This record gives sequence, C-alpha cells and structure tokens, in this order.
Amino acid sequence: MAETIPHWLTKQADLSPNHIAIELDSGDAMTFRELKEYSQMLAKKLANLNIEKGTHVGILSSNSIIMLATIHALSYLGAVGVLLNVRLTEEEMNYQVKDAEVNVLLTADNFREFAEQLDVPTIFSFSDMEKLQPRETKLQTELHLDDHFTIIYTSGTTGFPKGVIHTYGNHLWSAVGSALNLGIHPNDKWLIPLPLFHVSGLSTSMKSVIYGMPIYLLEKFDEEIVHHAIMEKGITIASVVTVMVQRLMKQLGNGQYPEAFRCMLLGGGPAPRPLLEAAKDKNIPVFQSYGMTETSSQIVTLSPSYALEKIGSAGKSLFSAQLKISGQTDAQVGEIMVKGPMVTKGYYKNDEANQRSFQDGWLKTGDLGYLDDEGFLYVVDRRKDLIISGGENIYPSEIESVLTGMEQIKEVGVAGKQDDTWGQVPVAFVVKNEEVTEEEILTYAGERLARYKLPKEVRFVDSLPRNASNKLVRNKLM
Amino acid sequence: MAETIPHWLTKQADLSPNHIAIELDSGDAMTFRELKEYSQMLAKKLANLNIEKGTHVGILSSNSIIMLATIHALSYLGAVGVLLNVRLTEEEMNYQVKDAEVNVLLTADNFREFAEQLDVPTIFSFSDMEKLQPRETKLQTELHLDDHFTIIYTSGTTGFPKGVIHTYGNHLWSAVGSALNLGIHPNDKWLIPLPLFHVSGLSTSMKSVIYGMPIYLLEKFDEEIVHHAIMEKGITIASVVTVMVQRLMKQLGNGQYPEAFRCMLLGGGPAPRPLLEAAKDKNIPVFQSYGMTETSSQIVTLSPSYALEKIGSAGKSLFSAQLKISGQTDAQVGEIMVKGPMVTKGYYKNDEANQRSFQDGWLKTGDLGYLDDEGFLYVVDRRKDLIISGGENIYPSEIESVLTGMEQIKEVGVAGKQDDTWGQVPVAFVVKNEEVTEEEILTYAGERLARYKLPKEVRFVDSLPRNASNKLVRNKLM
Repeated sequence: MAETIPHWLTKQADLSPNHIAIELDSGDAMTFRELKEYSQMLAKKLANLNIEKGTHVGILSSNSIIMLATIHALSYLGAVGVLLNVRLTEEEMNYQVKDAEVNVLLTADNFREFAEQLDVPTIFSFSDMEKLQPRETKLQTELHLDDHFTIIYTSGTTGFPKGVIHTYGNHLWSAVGSALNLGIHPNDKWLIPLPLFHVSGLSTSMKSVIYGMPIYLLEKFDEEIVHHAIMEKGITIASVVTVMVQRLMKQLGNGQYPEAFRCMLLGGGPAPRPLLEAAKDKNIPVFQSYGMTETSSQIVTLSPSYALEKIGSAGKSLFSAQLKISGQTDAQVGEIMVKGPMVTKGYYKNDEANQRSFQDGWLKTGDLGYLDDEGFLYVVDRRKDLIISGGENIYPSEIESVLTGMEQIKEVGVAGKQDDTWGQVPVAFVVKNEEVTEEEILTYAGERLARYKLPKEVRFVDSLPRNASNKLVRNKLM
Repeated sequence: MAETIPHWLTKQADLSPNHIAIELDSGDAMTFRELKEYSQMLAKKLANLNIEKGTHVGILSSNSIIMLATIHALSYLGAVGVLLNVRLTEEEMNYQVKDAEVNVLLTADNFREFAEQLDVPTIFSFSDMEKLQPRETKLQTELHLDDHFTIIYTSGTTGFPKGVIHTYGNHLWSAVGSALNLGIHPNDKWLIPLPLFHVSGLSTSMKSVIYGMPIYLLEKFDEEIVHHAIMEKGITIASVVTVMVQRLMKQLGNGQYPEAFRCMLLGGGPAPRPLLEAAKDKNIPVFQSYGMTETSSQIVTLSPSYALEKIGSAGKSLFSAQLKISGQTDAQVGEIMVKGPMVTKGYYKNDEANQRSFQDGWLKTGDLGYLDDEGFLYVVDRRKDLIISGGENIYPSEIESVLTGMEQIKEVGVAGKQDDTWGQVPVAFVVKNEEVTEEEILTYAGERLARYKLPKEVRFVDSLPRNASNKLVRNKLM
C-alpha cells in the first residue's frame, strides 16, 4: 500500500518554523515558515491559471528562491513540475515540452523571450505570476508517495531524451537513504552549486524540507564563492562533480577546510584516482557516489569509514537499495543494475524505454562496473562511452584517470574514433595547465597503460564539453 | 505500491560488518555480521520445524541475544513473531496464542516449564532450537514493507487484548521518523531497559539494524546498572518510563551525566511536571514523547529545541505522521487521533476492533489530550482512566502530577472509585518516601487543586501496580 504523509513543507514549517530553509550568497534567506507561506501564496495565484491536480507545468529557470517556491507551489496543487534545462536549444526544449504534455510554462524573467518561441499554450514569467490575484483553493495537506511530483529529462544511451518521473516517495526515500548513510547532524547546511533542474540539486532541496536543514543555494558554480562559503558560512556538506573538486582544490591551495565541513559528495561519473589521492592528502572529505536522474540522485555512496581504504570505489548501495552486476560474478565488469524505492517507477509515456530499462523490478543503468570481493562498486564507464578496439574493451575513464596524474594536464576527456583497422581507437582531448607535448603525454601514458589502451592521438583544446551539471559529455568530444 | 527493500539485517551486515550491533551489561557483544550469521543459522534450524512464510510463531523470553536473533530468524523465513509478555498468567497467554493462531512456541529455557502448560502444538526451548540441524532453505533476501513482521498484544479500553500487527514498513517508518527528529550521530548507542516483547524495546532493536547503531540491551531495568551504563559505557540515548526517571535521578544525586548522553526518551504516559522540572534542573535531556503499541513506539516527541519551553508537552507528531484532536479546536480536550505509515494497519483478525479504532485512515487512540496554540500536544490521560465525578472530568495524571511534588511522596497513582452520590470519586494510592499523613497530603492538594479534584481518600501502599514495561496500571489500583 502506498503511504501518505503530511505535505512535507507544511510539516517542516510546523516543526521548525523559524529555522532557515534556504540561504543565498547574497545574504537573502528564508525560514521554513516563510517558504511555506510564499509557496502557498504562489499556489493560490497559480490556481488562476487552471493549474490543478495532474497538470504538467514546465519550469524554466536557473536557481533562485522563486524557482524553488514555484516547485513547492505546484506540489500544493498536485501539479507536476517539468524541470527544463536552461541550456537546451529551442528544438530540444520543444521536444521535451511536447513529450511531457506541458500546458503551462513558468519561466524566470530572463528566459521569457526565449520561452515565448516555444510551443506551449500558456507562458508566464515569474514576475507576471507574482502579479496574479490569489484564488481561494484547497491546497494539498498530504502527499501520497506514489503521486508524481516532477519530471526531468535525461538523454538515453540511444534516441531521444526520456522523461524521468519522480514521485514524492522517490524523493523521500532518497533523503532517507542519504540520511542513514551520512547521518543527520543538528548543524548541517548543504551547499547546492548544481541546478535545481537536475536531480542532484532538486533532491537536496527536498532533503532540506525533509530534514529541516538549510540549503545554501548558488545560481551557478563559482569556485571562489563555493570556497568562501565552505570557509566562512558553516557549510557541512556540498554536492559537487569532478571538475569542481579540481577547481576547489586549487582555490584551497595549502589551506584546510573547517572541521565542520564533513562531506564533499562527489557525483557525476567516476573520478580520477590522482584527484582522489590529492584530496585525501589535503584532508578533504570527498565521498565518491554513484547515481543518476533515474535513482533520484546518489544510490551508491562510499561511507565515511571506507573513504580512504576503498579509494576509487563508489561504495555500497544505500540502506534501502540493492545493487548487482548483470550476469556477472567474481569482479567481472558488467552492466550495473539497481533496485530500491528511490528508483523511478518509469519514463513518462514511454513503454518502449520502460521495457528496455527495467527487468524484474531492477533498473538497467547502462553503466559498466564491477564489485570487489567485499561488494564495493567500481564504476568503469557509461556503456555508451565504452571504446571497443580490436575486440578489447577500453574504458575512457581509466585513461583519463592516468593522464590527470600529469601535472601539466588540467583536464582530459577520452573518446573513441572510428578506425578501419581496429573498429575504434581512443583519442585524448587535453586542456593544458602548462606546456606539454603529445609525445610527453604518450610517453607518460605508455609507462602506465597497456599498449592497446594508449591514445592514438592527442588533441589540445581550451575546454571540455560539459552539460549543465558540469559533467563531461564524452560523445561531444569528437 | 508497497516498496521492497533488502533484508535489513543482511544489508547492515554488508554496510557495517564489524560494527557492534548489540552489547550486554555482561560485556558480551555481537557485530552486525555475527548477528546476521547467527540469525540465519537459527532460521535454517527453524526450517526443520516447518516454519515458513506466514507461520505464526510465539516467542516467550525476557531480553537476550538469542531472543533478538530468533526474531530476526523468523523474518528470514517470512514467519510472524508473536511476542508474549512473560508476566502473563497461563489463561491470558492461552488467550493470546489461540487468538494469534500460534502453531509453534519458542521459549527461553527458564520459561519452558510454564510454556508446556500452554495450548500450542509445538514447543521448543531456545536450547533445543539450537540443537536442531540446519536445513538448506531459501532465506528472504528482501523485505516487502506491507508484510507482517510481528504481533504484540495490547489491552484495549474494553474487552479482550487485541493483537497489533506490525509490518516491516511500520518499523522502518518509525525508525525514520525518530531519526528525522533526534538526528543520527556516528557515536550513537541506545540503551534498552524495556522488554523486547513491548514495542518500545522491539522498535529500538530494529532501529539498531536500520541505522547501523549498537544497542545496549538489559534483561530488565535496574537503576544501578542503567546509571553505570550512562556514566561509563558511552550511552547516548535511553528509552525510559516515568518511574525509571525518578529512580535514576535519585541515583545521579548531585552528579551530572556525560555530555555525550543526549536523550532520555520518556514514554509510557504523561509525566508529572515536578519530575520534568527536577530533571531540567539536573540538565538531564528528558524528551517527552507519546506513542503506543499501535504506533510502533513514539509518534509524537518534543524536539530538543522546545524541551524547556514546552515542558509537560509530548511535542509534535514526527515528520511522516499527523495528529489531531477529535472534533475539537481551540485547546479543548478531546480524543487524540494519529495517522502515518508507522501506525499499524490493524488488529489481527479483529474486524470489530478495527472498525471501532480506525476512521478515514486515522487511529482513534483512546487517549485524551489537547493542542496548545502552537500545536504542541498535551496528553491528559487514557480515556479509560478518566474519572467522571458529578459530571466533571477529572484526569488522574493531573492529581498525580501535583502530589508527586510533595517531598514525602515517592510515587502516586490515582483511580476512580464508585460513589453513590458523585458516580465516581478520586482515590490516591501513595508510596511514601518518608512519614506523611493523609491530612498533610490533602492540605497540600487543597492548595493546588480545585475542590472537586481532591482525592476523597488516600491509601498508603508499598508499591504501585505496573506492567512489564513499568507503566502504571491504574485500573489495578483499586
């Protein structure tokens, strides 16, 4: 039986009315009571747009208080928020709003002009939304855990993006799983430098409401601001991706983070071992994790007690989750499969993707990995990024991990290039820290990698292609 | 949709294999891996007794490692543990084993002789169970949250005891609710001086498995042992009832508990205000709470931030729970009603009680209370203990609370006596600390209570009737 809980924001506003719910770098802040009242007021305004239970409402915004309050407002109406990535092209966005059957689009003022080109019948900027008169409406007092809360699109391994449905239960279980792993401390304050239209940012902002914990919300990642926040603003946990760790370590220099900063939660793909070792040397509490939109953020995390011993591992699946490697035993690489109440029940109106992705209640992640003899997960790559060269499997992340160890290299991405002889061969795309030649790089790699894994080519570039949450997008390297 | 999680003990044994799961005062301890292996071994032995999914198995024991491992063993087989109160008479116990359709009874060796008089086809002592040969059996690897885990009997307001079904989900949600209130700290160790056959002890031992937290399990409450454990054994949380707090405060004298001791979780009925004030003076972190077998332990708790300001209140309902006073508004006393995923789905095969006790998904608790203007619950009494005298409602706990303030009084219980004039009148049953007369007591009460609330009689007794979890049983006072 699906369970019912009180509306989480109403509940937290009752339990911790005067606690800070959200804090911005500007100094602006809002308590749980204020956030509730603001969100409920917006809900009553939105009721004028005939938004009701089950209506799909697009949200186009970078991080802001009004964006978060709008997401909560939709939950008070039982409407479903379709969170759109602000970096999408018009064509990509039109695909998503059509696929998700979006009737109303709410947009930050600065995206309004762009939004008006989209095929959505009703478009309101946040400013115009605020000007609406509130209408007396029965707001949801409870949340049914199986009800749909949000839809976020994810690019599949093939074909068009798929709309991942998140229920209230998915978010709640994600929050519970994380709490049982990281603990809940009274002074916790979680920094979000990632967009709310990605699951990492969204799920953390729901953890805020579930734990009664403040979030420190940034409009976007900026290493100086994040560094300052960790040093001065009482941050205890921060969600980051690999490239952010690199930049933050540079910012930190020979300094030390405050003791209260207890977790740098690292997602967004396998991290290079040299980076993790450097972080360890600086006493930075990096927790590797593994998750995706479909798992409502992290589902596998390396717990504090193993952070050093199992460096390079993403850890074990959270308390309520399960993990296995498809068809494999004994530390062989295979497809990672996960199961648990934080895993999406499916893609929106996409039977074909649902049939392909789920098997006996398990999600086939499309990622490759193996378990060591103690059951710790090592993610080796996205399956779609795998390079097959002369019948050998080559994992780009392995080559990247090695090359990142070169002082002269700032960032590196590896992708496969078609090759008449081998099928595919690896090519390294390098962002330099200082002068270095292709020959030096290949010599360095040659001492550390099997011959068939050596890049056949090194291309020097100014930056690597990254998505809105700063994850390396390997299929855009070539 | 009911969710599925990995078997919690197997999971915790994987996440924290070498962490202590259970610690006894004798110094004996067991890690999560050991507890899992022991429980799985017992499960394989019990498979020989044809215990399988859905079998109802009685357990008759005071607290011990083997009792807890047997409860886990049953969960590996999908069997349902019926936890019997060792203080019951033969007749009472026969009622419960028959009502719960118990086919097999597992008993601690010291209760074997008693158990053999019961109407159960198969009876095994723990020693005999350990001598069984293990049989290869498919153990449960997952728990379905709607599946039945245990049955515990509770005396109703009228008639025969009712078997409260606890699902795995009830326990999990109870643990989550408590965690979101009290937090989860890495050094937590929870002391259980209450029987595992009561929901308080049982639910805490499941929190152990869910949080990966050691419990410190006592066979029974002993103030010297508990005091010593809090002072010396790193206890951070202890579950207690009122009378235990009184005895522990005496033991503490002018001392102070260690700072690590962060929560004395007080259940089992409204606590007298003088006791709470005395505890406050000694810096004892007493958290009042409210719960019952049907709510899988506490469902309302006074959170740390309000512990002093709202002394006497049981607090607010836990994150996933809801609370209301039946048909009342504005601080009027009425029946307390609760709702949430930790609340039992019903009594075993008892349609009549289920119809009487549930209303639109809410449990009618049979307890009386009111909410203050900020929504904090004040429990005034069990409805069945209410004394109606000349049309006035008299709450025994109010009189008890006042009289406990007299230095000469150690403990006091109040119950109603039939009276031809008034219907009922209150009678006070007093255990003395030092010499005191009925007249002195009535003078003291007369200065603090309305005339109609004054006890019409004071009876001096050596002790008060308490149940196995040390709660005052008012209907046995007369």
